[in-house]
Parts: sequence; C-alpha cells; structure tokens
Amino acid sequence: MKLMQQHKLPWSFPLGRWLKDYRKETLVRDCVAGIVVSIVMVPQSMGYALLAGMPAEYGLYCAILPAFLYAFLGSSRSLSVGPAALISIMLAGSVATLNPQTEVEYIHYVVNISLLVGVFLMAMSLLRLGRLTNYISVPVISGFTSAAALTIMVSQLKHMMGVELGTGLDFGHTLLSLVQSIGQINIVTVVIGVSACVALWFFKTPFPRLIQRLKLPSWLEQALSKSGPMVVVLASAVMVAVLHLETSAQVSVVGNIPQGLPALSGISVDIALWKQLAMPSFLIALMCFITSIAVSSSLASKRRERVDSNQELLALGVANLGAAFSGTFALAGSLSRSAVNDATGAETTISSMVCALCIVVTLLFLTAAFYYLPLAVLGAIVIMSVFSMIDVQQFLRCWRLNRADAYSLLATFLAVLIFDIQTGIGVGIVLSVVLLLHRASHPHIAVVGRVGDSAHFRNIERHDVITSQSVVAIRVDESIYFSNVQYIEDFILEQCASHPQANHIVLICSSVSFVDTTAVDELERLIDKLRENEITLHFAEVKGPVMDQLKKTRLLDRLQPGRVFFTTDEAMRTLTAVRDTEQAED
Amino acid sequence: MKLMQQHKLPWSFPLGRWLKDYRKETLVRDCVAGIVVSIVMVPQSMGYALLAGMPAEYGLYCAILPAFLYAFLGSSRSLSVGPAALISIMLAGSVATLNPQTEVEYIHYVVNISLLVGVFLMAMSLLRLGRLTNYISVPVISGFTSAAALTIMVSQLKHMMGVELGTGLDFGHTLLSLVQSIGQINIVTVVIGVSACVALWFFKTPFPRLIQRLKLPSWLEQALSKSGPMVVVLASAVMVAVLHLETSAQVSVVGNIPQGLPALSGISVDIALWKQLAMPSFLIALMCFITSIAVSSSLASKRRERVDSNQELLALGVANLGAAFSGTFALAGSLSRSAVNDATGAETTISSMVCALCIVVTLLFLTAAFYYLPLAVLGAIVIMSVFSMIDVQQFLRCWRLNRADAYSLLATFLAVLIFDIQTGIGVGIVLSVVLLLHRASHPHIAVVGRVGDSAHFRNIERHDVITSQSVVAIRVDESIYFSNVQYIEDFILEQCASHPQANHIVLICSSVSFVDTTAVDELERLIDKLRENEITLHFAEVKGPVMDQLKKTRLLDRLQPGRVFFTTDEAMRTLTAVRDTEQAED
Repeated sequence: MKLMQQHKLPWSFPLGRWLKDYRKETLVRDCVAGIVVSIVMVPQSMGYALLAGMPAEYGLYCAILPAFLYAFLGSSRSLSVGPAALISIMLAGSVATLNPQTEVEYIHYVVNISLLVGVFLMAMSLLRLGRLTNYISVPVISGFTSAAALTIMVSQLKHMMGVELGTGLDFGHTLLSLVQSIGQINIVTVVIGVSACVALWFFKTPFPRLIQRLKLPSWLEQALSKSGPMVVVLASAVMVAVLHLETSAQVSVVGNIPQGLPALSGISVDIALWKQLAMPSFLIALMCFITSIAVSSSLASKRRERVDSNQELLALGVANLGAAFSGTFALAGSLSRSAVNDATGAETTISSMVCALCIVVTLLFLTAAFYYLPLAVLGAIVIMSVFSMIDVQQFLRCWRLNRADAYSLLATFLAVLIFDIQTGIGVGIVLSVVLLLHRASHPHIAVVGRVGDSAHFRNIERHDVITSQSVVAIRVDESIYFSNVQYIEDFILEQCASHPQANHIVLICSSVSFVDTTAVDELERLIDKLRENEITLHFAEVKGPVMDQLKKTRLLDRLQPGRVFFTTDEAMRTLTAVRDTEQAED
Repeated sequence: MKLMQQHKLPWSFPLGRWLKDYRKETLVRDCVAGIVVSIVMVPQSMGYALLAGMPAEYGLYCAILPAFLYAFLGSSRSLSVGPAALISIMLAGSVATLNPQTEVEYIHYVVNISLLVGVFLMAMSLLRLGRLTNYISVPVISGFTSAAALTIMVSQLKHMMGVELGTGLDFGHTLLSLVQSIGQINIVTVVIGVSACVALWFFKTPFPRLIQRLKLPSWLEQALSKSGPMVVVLASAVMVAVLHLETSAQVSVVGNIPQGLPALSGISVDIALWKQLAMPSFLIALMCFITSIAVSSSLASKRRERVDSNQELLALGVANLGAAFSGTFALAGSLSRSAVNDATGAETTISSMVCALCIVVTLLFLTAAFYYLPLAVLGAIVIMSVFSMIDVQQFLRCWRLNRADAYSLLATFLAVLIFDIQTGIGVGIVLSVVLLLHRASHPHIAVVGRVGDSAHFRNIERHDVITSQSVVAIRVDESIYFSNVQYIEDFILEQCASHPQANHIVLICSSVSFVDTTAVDELERLIDKLRENEITLHFAEVKGPVMDQLKKTRLLDRLQPGRVFFTTDEAMRTLTAVRDTEQAED
C-alpha cells in the first residue's frame, strides 16, 4: 500500500504479475465468468448502443478491442469494461448539439468524442490526476446519476411505444415529444415492451430465489439467474419471426447486423472539431473515470486489494482509444456486469478476454439471430438496467445528515432534468467547488474557558467552564491562510466588541499547522487594530514549524508586548495575574 | 462591530450619520483636505486618462459625478475615488482587443465597460459577495500589481520619447514597438520627460524633509509637499508656451480641452457588445473592489472603524455608473490620493465633494492653462505614481515564509508580462483556487503517542512519546468531508501497512467539527476494509454535534466491535489492556 499513489509512474502491467502464479483452476474460473458475463453483455451492449443513438452492432464492437486492451493494463481483476448507460446518454446529448444530418456524420462525431475521451483519460493519468475526483462530492454524483437514469428511461420510452423520435433530447423535450406522439403508438410494440419488462423483473427478483432452492453450483446459479435478458431477447426474436410482426404489425426490429468484426480505421486530424468537442468529451471522461473507479475500488476492497487510480486512468484511456479506432463509441466500467464477473469467479482480466472472444463468436456466427429482435425489448433491457441507479435513499440520508449535501444533490438532479446532462454535471462540479471554498473559508473557532481547576480548556458553548472578563482565549481549529484569515479576524474583533472589559486576547494555535503570507500580513494588521483598542494579542501552543515560520517575519516583533506562551494554562495564569495586579493598583 | 457583514442589507447612507454631529471645524478640515487632494487629482487624473487611451479631460470628468455619488454612499470617510492606474491600464487592454477604428468608437467601448463594471459591483453588493476577495491571496494580488505597474510604466515611455504607439498593447509588444521606433525619438520631449521625473522625485523624497524644518501647520506642509505634480505641470506648460516648443520642437501637448462640464448622456442597450465585454468588465470590477477595499479598510482601521465591504461595493458600483453616464471611464479608490486626504485632515466624504467642486472650477475656468502641457509630463507623473507598486520585498518575504506563495506570485507576475493583464489576473485567480482546493484536501494528520506517564498525546514526529505496536492512535486536525476523506483514508491504510502488528486504530476526532455524507460513506467502507485486514477502528474525543450526526447513520452499528471512547487516554488504556489479555491467553 502506498500513501500517495501519485508519486510513482503510472505505467505497469498488472496482468503480467497475475499470470506469474496462474493455474489451470484459475483459467477455468475465468472462462466460466467470461462466458456468463458475455450472456449479459450481448443484449445490454446492443441496448446501450441504441441509447447512444448508434446501430446495435456498435455496442458489440465496444466489447472486443477495448476489453482486450483494458485486460492488459487494468489494475482491477474483475472490472467489466464496455458500453455503459451514463456514458451512452452523455454521448447522445453531446452529438445532438452538433446537429448531424446523416448517420455517417453522427458516427464520425461519436468516434471523435471517443478519441478525445481516451486522450483526456491518458492525459489525466500522466498528470497523475487520479485524485481529481476527490473534488466532486458523493451527493453531487448521486443527484447526477439519479437524474441521468430518469433521462435514460424516458429516452427509451419511444422504443417501447414504437414511435420515431430524435436521439439526444433532454428530459423535458423527450417527455413533450412523447406526449405529442401519443397518437402514433404501436399497440403490439407496447405489449412486447411491457411483457419484456415484466419478464426481466421476474428474472431479476423472484427467479434467483427460486433457483436457489435447487442447490446448483454457484457459477451455474449465477449464469442462470443472469441469463434473463438473453432469454427475453431470443424468445422475443423467435416470436416476432414466427408471427412476422415486423411486417404485419410494424414492430421495429434491429434488422440486418453486418456479420464479422469491425475494421480498424484511422481518424483524421480535425482540430476545429476537437475544439468543439473538448468540453463534452472532458465531462464524459470524468464521468467514465468516476463510475469505473467506484466499481473497481469497491470490488478490490472485497479482495483486500487497492486499485491504483492513475493506472486505471491509463487503462480506461487506452480502452477508449481502442473504441475510437474500432470506429465505435466511448465506454466505461459497468457496475452490473462487473458484479456478475466477480460473483461467477473471475480471478484476473483473462475473464474479460474470454468475454470478448464470446462477442467475437456472436458477431461471426449469431448475428442472424438478432434480425427479428424488437427494439422495444432492447429499450426494456436499458430501462430495467438503469432503474436501480435512481437512489432516493441517498437523498434521505443526506437530508438527515447534512442539509447542504441534500441541497447540492437536489440542485444537480434538477439541473440535469431541467437543462441537460452536460449542464447538470457542470452545475454539480461548480457546486462541489463552491462548497469546498466555503468550508475552507469558515474554519471552526471557539472561545474556550477553564474546566474547573484543571489545566484543560474547552469551548464555552459546549462545556461548563470558567472564563475571565479581561482575558479572552480563542482556539482556531485549522491552519491560517488567505481564505480563512479574514473570517478569523472578524471572529476575534467580534469577541472584542462583546467583551468590552477585555484587554488581552490569547489565540490558541494548537491546530494551526502552517500560516501563509496573507495570514501573516493580516495578523500583523490585526495586532495593530487591537493595540489601538488597547487590547494585546498573545499566542499560545504554537507548533514548532509554525514558530519557525513566524520567526522569519516581523510578526513577533510587532506582537510586543504580546507574548507567545507555551500552554494556554500558562497564558491564562500569567495574564489574569497581571490584571489582578493592575486592579489592585487602581 | 459585526461578525458577519453579509447578514445585513447593504443599503445605508453613512454620510447622513456623520452629518448629525458635523461642526464648523470639521467643515474647515474637510475643505482643506478637499482642496489639497484636488491639487494632486488634476494632473494625476489627466495622466490616468492618457493611460486608459482617453483624452485628458475625461480623467477630470471621472472626478466629479462619481466622487459626489461615492460621497453619499461610501462607508469610508477618507477614500478618494477617481481615475486609478490599474483600472485604466486594464481598460486600455480590454478595449484594444475590440480593435476600435475611431476615437468615438473607443470611447463608446470604454463607457460600456464602465457601465458593466458598475453593474457588476452593484450585483456583487446585492448578492453580498463582499467576501469574494478572500479567495484571492495577497501574493497573487502582489504579483499582479507589480507586473501591471511595469506594464504601465512601459506604456508611458512612448509619451516620454515622443513617439506614436497604439494603446492597450501588452508588455512585450510595447517594448518591441518602442525599440523599433527608437529612430523617431524627439530629443526635446525626452529632456522634458526626464526633467519632470527628476523634479517629481525631488518633490516626493527630499522636499518634504526640507519643509519639515519650517515647522508649518500640518495641512500646509502636506499641501506643499503634495503640490509637486501640479507645480511640474504648470511650470512645464508655461515653458512650452513661452518657447513655442509645441511647434518649434514638435513636443506633443494636451491641446484644446473643451471648457465646461461633461453632459450626462444615456447609454443604448447593446446586449451583443455587453456579452463581449462581460468578462473583462468583471475582472476590472474585481480589481476595482480589491484595491479600493484594501485602501479604505487600512484607513478605517487607523480610526478604529471598520469598512462595510458590501456597502463599499454598492458605493463603488454607483460611482462607476456615474462615470458611465458622464461618458467617461471606470474608476476606483486611489491609495496615494486617499493617503493625502487622510493626512490633510479629511473627516467625512464632504472633503471628496469639495475636491469635486475644485475640479468643476478647473474645468470651467482653468482648461486654457493645460493647452501647452506636454504629454511627456503626464507620462512622467504616471510612471512616478506607479513606481511604488512594484513590490520586490513581498516576493522575498513569500520566498522565505511559504514557497507556494512565492511561486504563485511569480506565476501571476510572469503571466501578466508574457500574455496580458486579463490573462494574468485569470491565472492568478485559478492559482488561488487550486491552492485552496489542494489545501482543503490535504488536512494535517498525525500519529500520536503518550507523553511520559501523562494522559496527554502528541505527534510522534515532534515529541518523544510512548507508542504501542498493537494500537495506533491517529489524530485528524480538520473536519472530515468529501475532498479530504480519501486522503485521510489513505493515511490510515498506510499506517496499517507500516504497523503490521496493529489490530486497533483509534481515530482522534478532537478537531472534527462536522462530517458530510461522502465522509460517512467512505468511513463505512474504511471500517469494512480494516475489518477484512483484522483491524478494528475506534473513535475517540468525538464532539457532541458530530456524535449527533453519526447517530443518524449506520456508521456506529458498522463500527462494532469498534467503540467510541470519551478520551484518547481511555481508548489507549482499554485497548492495550485487551491486547495484553489476549497475549496472556495465547
């Protein structure tokens, strides 16, 4: 374990390390996991392709080369990378703003965004920005995710209703368009979609409990309980084919999927386009990283391992470049598939390679099976996949625990729904930073008093303590620097105003680890201001390094006759004694 | 005194309060101060007008209506508002980017910027953003100011050399153009300019010491010692007029100044232009506020008063609107003039009104006197005024005290010189925020040990303390929230790695004033991670409000068998005793 992962170079090949003690049993486990994941992957990736506004097969393309690349570089043993709902909806939103006229143009934009996402992720890795995500709070991410899930679900209703609608619309416009097109609903499509939802729910919720009773081997139990989407896909395709619903009832189907693998292709340099795409791509890269790292680090902690965030950035970046050069769309780690991968026994990223091979087989031999697959079923799969992303519990927790968190969650949530996904995440990031700035500039400060006869001093608002009219002891619970020194100064001046008899202020610096230039300037000015009001400032419990810093300035000279006391106790005894002598002389 | 100025409405009329006990003697003092300031104001404001690329008389216009408006609303008794060097150079730079073709167009842009500056300042007042400036550190402002002063000085060399050059060029381009036009130097102009500099230096430095010996009344001494620029202006104008240098030696002079006051004029709504000007105007507004508040608060503290920053924002905003509707340029509080105002005895803003009346008199009756005033002299006045803004001392202080401060000062300084003023201040603000974010995410954390036999625990790196192999006590010196929880978690995991025999971690929360949702989530995960490594997490010295927060979460349940101890002493005694028992049982 390393304290600061930033201090090492991000390049390493975790797979090489794992293969050193790779055994036959490990391979078996990886193969089983890979095959089971591919059963989930095939329908899900086609659904997410539709969500991104791309033809279904592009979802499968995402699951081949990028998965192989991640397998070589990724530091998470069981993260399943591939199409992801959040990334797909953000892609669709970003491309929509460019108003592409043809499918070729649409794909061109998507590929360029994927390229930039890869470049941004790799740049973040090289700059060791793995900790950048620390600056975005969990409530903001939660608000964003819940709203994005709602947007995704609404965006899939068109497939469930069998109506034509553009991709990449925001929540409000999609709802409006759906309502306006209510007359064109295709009843058969609705029936298929709703049945698919019910079937998916059945496979997800009561079915695993039923098969638990069969006492099957764990991997088989997992495989069966996760095969729901695949079963629904195949069953619905067979039904449509048999009843010729695609012609007799105008049910929209996936149609012809080109057999074979995607060709690798170059991408022409287009600086003007990249400039336009930079901001949305950066946000997609950020979201890709945040969601992937959340999944991989929670899986790693189960194994008592840690994920190296800069290595992850690199691996995700390279995987996205792989997507771009496969001519398909940006991807990320998926929570649902990674959980399946882990539960079915994946030991290393070899399982991801096995999964990718299964996708290759599908593309080579099984594409015909998807011709009759109704889009409504893919829509149902997407809706059911993202349903659990709506997290009301988190909002309630925030509301109870920290009202500011609840408000930032709500603001991000509403920004996504009212404006769009890009604006929403922008609002969230700005909110996080503003919260941080606000907190950094409002340190905790307390007036303290003596506990009984002891040498201990505690906050007068929380404890029953003895204070002095002439000497006010103030404890600052943070380092003093430019953003909080004004607040600290105001607090001290306020205390002077409310203690008219005070002629000594003791600033207890037990929690002050450093001071900066702005703080020293401001404290010098404070000393003068207090002196003009016949109040002397003293310091107590100044730490060694801070004392060394202060000795380099004029502050200690300016402080005279104020002193630096070793302990608060010493300060209070000395200063109250002086006061008593003065009073005796009066 | 008020702790939080934000909590009251920003509207008030300080002048009304001061007039309640206004006496004849006060009026006399205000009049003397006003007249003396006007002697400084007239040449300086014409010089700053040139700096802003405006005709000289517009500087005088700045000193009338805006000064009256500030006098009614300002909360500083002796701040002298009017043309300011920093604001003028920023204006010139902003307008230059729009590439105006005629003087009318130039003035049109300047007036619109002034309008927006006023609007931004008022908006900041209404939003109570008086504390916004806390987020910009003193080193950043110092680096900016020094580089801006250099830029200003270089920009005035063209007047000293008598060559034609555009306004609003950045440092590098100005230097380059000056070198290229070295062949066109007007020797007589150079002689006038250099003589003016020497004369100004004489009036500034040895002269006040000489007249001190005369034991004159203080106001007269001040008036004489500050009359240098006016004397130089009048003397040079007389010399040029007598020798006809404006024709015989082609010395550039101010020329015809229209007699009379500026007409008030409306400003047409031009949203497209305002959008273009918004960013530079915002930065000018920010700089106007930062420099003005620095001056007024330092003057107020001499009188044991405080300046209300939101009231100041309002007053400065209204004053800038006044400038816009007078058809002239943006302004701010001036350090040099305010100091004169204060030193000559200004008691209230009535002195500013007296000064404004003197400017009115000048415009009505004395404009002819300035016809022959050489531009080189105005350039010399500007150069000598801003010379003291170059602050090398501050850089050296920062270098000794806090290296990060020194680097941000240098970065801002270089950004202004290499790019331009606008970019420079942008770089400075971003740097300040990045520094803040970095600090907020790197709290001070210490492993502590027992001091001798006492109940006190101190940092093991600083004190000679007794530690336990099985129980590690870690003190976090800040509240725990989203931006620092990851750092804290890493620190704890690192300690676990370096203490392989540890099976208890005690987190001492004496400085933790609150926790947010992200922190609780992460701490819950940390508890699980530690448990998987057979380490139990405990808390000690948790403050009441934090305990209340934690009780609302599942954290305390998850903590089991970990406990919350009242004191660190209790925790260490209990846990090391358990350990001893366990060892005894082994």
